[in-house]
Amino acid sequence: MTDLRTATGAAVRVACRRGELTRPTPGLAPGYVQANLVVLPKDWAFDFLLFCQRNPKPCPLLDVTEPGDPEPLSVAPGADLRTDLPAYRLWRNGELVEEPVDITRYWRDDLVAFLIGCSFTFETALLDAGVPVRHIEENVNVPMYRTNVPCRPAGRFAGPMVVSMRPLTPAQAVRATQVCSRLPRAHGAPVHFGDPLAIGISAIERPDFGDPVTIRPGEVPVFWACGVTPQAVLMEAKPPFAITHKPGHMFLTDWKDSDLEE
Amino acid sequence: MTDLRTATGAAVRVACRRGELTRPTPGLAPGYVQANLVVLPKDWAFDFLLFCQRNPKPCPLLDVTEPGDPEPLSVAPGADLRTDLPAYRLWRNGELVEEPVDITRYWRDDLVAFLIGCSFTFETALLDAGVPVRHIEENVNVPMYRTNVPCRPAGRFAGPMVVSMRPLTPAQAVRATQVCSRLPRAHGAPVHFGDPLAIGISAIERPDFGDPVTIRPGEVPVFWACGVTPQAVLMEAKPPFAITHKPGHMFLTDWKDSDLEE
Repeated sequence: MTDLRTATGAAVRVACRRGELTRPTPGLAPGYVQANLVVLPKDWAFDFLLFCQRNPKPCPLLDVTEPGDPEPLSVAPGADLRTDLPAYRLWRNGELVEEPVDITRYWRDDLVAFLIGCSFTFETALLDAGVPVRHIEENVNVPMYRTNVPCRPAGRFAGPMVVSMRPLTPAQAVRATQVCSRLPRAHGAPVHFGDPLAIGISAIERPDFGDPVTIRPGEVPVFWACGVTPQAVLMEAKPPFAITHKPGHMFLTDWKDSDLEE
Repeated sequence: MTDLRTATGAAVRVACRRGELTRPTPGLAPGYVQANLVVLPKDWAFDFLLFCQRNPKPCPLLDVTEPGDPEPLSVAPGADLRTDLPAYRLWRNGELVEEPVDITRYWRDDLVAFLIGCSFTFETALLDAGVPVRHIEENVNVPMYRTNVPCRPAGRFAGPMVVSMRPLTPAQAVRATQVCSRLPRAHGAPVHFGDPLAIGISAIERPDFGDPVTIRPGEVPVFWACGVTPQAVLMEAKPPFAITHKPGHMFLTDWKDSDLEE
């Protein structure tokens, strides 16, 4: 079996398709863009596409499929979104009902798949630029917070932005802003730094999702729009049927991280 | 009456609404972003939104309205897209049937309006950077060409990219690339320069739309994705009902050109 820590995105997808990979994808196929997955029926897809268009920082779209077509023609021609992720979540009326490793039997002619950029891409760019990423150093999940910053609503979708946080010195925060500005399809530049309360976060030590990390003297918390936002908004809207990736179990594209640089 | 050559975007909209302005908008409200308009019924809007998402260089979306709502909440809150442009075109089954100056009586609860970025924004930025714009110097319309570069299709929408052309020296072309790269929502960086035949243009002296311009010794033609692309694709798809702006008669937003810089 291929060592997936040095494999291509395509090799990771094949391992998923064969049922050989059902675990999280961080660290696999380094340099390849990983993506969040949201699948919705066509009659909900316009509202969701509009929500992403209006909120590109939390919801940077990489690819959207034709209704019924499980092939993401832009980011991975030949791939099959029904089999090529390690694990999925199946939702009915906003409730999690199952975590399958293959969604072929749930696929329908009216389903539209959305692939959304992911923070792994900009974290790789930060590390390459010498900017430390605390939750990677501490080997935990990134801390994420619900804010009081509203997303621009679209049809049935509305809700606050969710942000991720990485503590940095001011000089590192400036460099991080430069590096991430070039990656608008991986959440782009930070949305805030400093006082958490200014964006409605009352307890920086108790994230709403993920794990707390150490903020050292001389560091400020720096906040990025987070890909959990569309999922939170989606579950709040309670569509009758939806499929997402299982958290951490992302879709590996054929795009290299450098393809996202603008 | 306000001098619209020094007015705000909002003042231009008011003049349109009162029926005082029915002529083209180039040169009006300098510094304010002007936008192309496309209006489609909801059952065509998903395909068109997807087409724009897949082809952001020719179709950079600035705002998309909720079905039935004529107010562009992002770029001009309080505006009314039914009255606030100088002139419109009404299309049925891909045929131009009327050029009204007000579309209130044609408005329907299922109509979705798309506002798309426009080359005026990057031409202002080029002039500010000392890069000449030939068709402005020669006081004609920009030359535009159908290419053999296919857009990524979406549902019922497909077709080749239309490009605009400006002759530049190589050094000016480099500067233009830098300046326009910062304006992805105004068509962004050029898509090609040099040999017209490489993108399927056989007669540079005979543009498909607009007027020919002089290419001086030492200059190369530089090509940008053009906002005529979505209109050409739209008319080819022949939706039963569509409204666009009349060419040159754009929508004036509240955004300043600098708001589009990334």
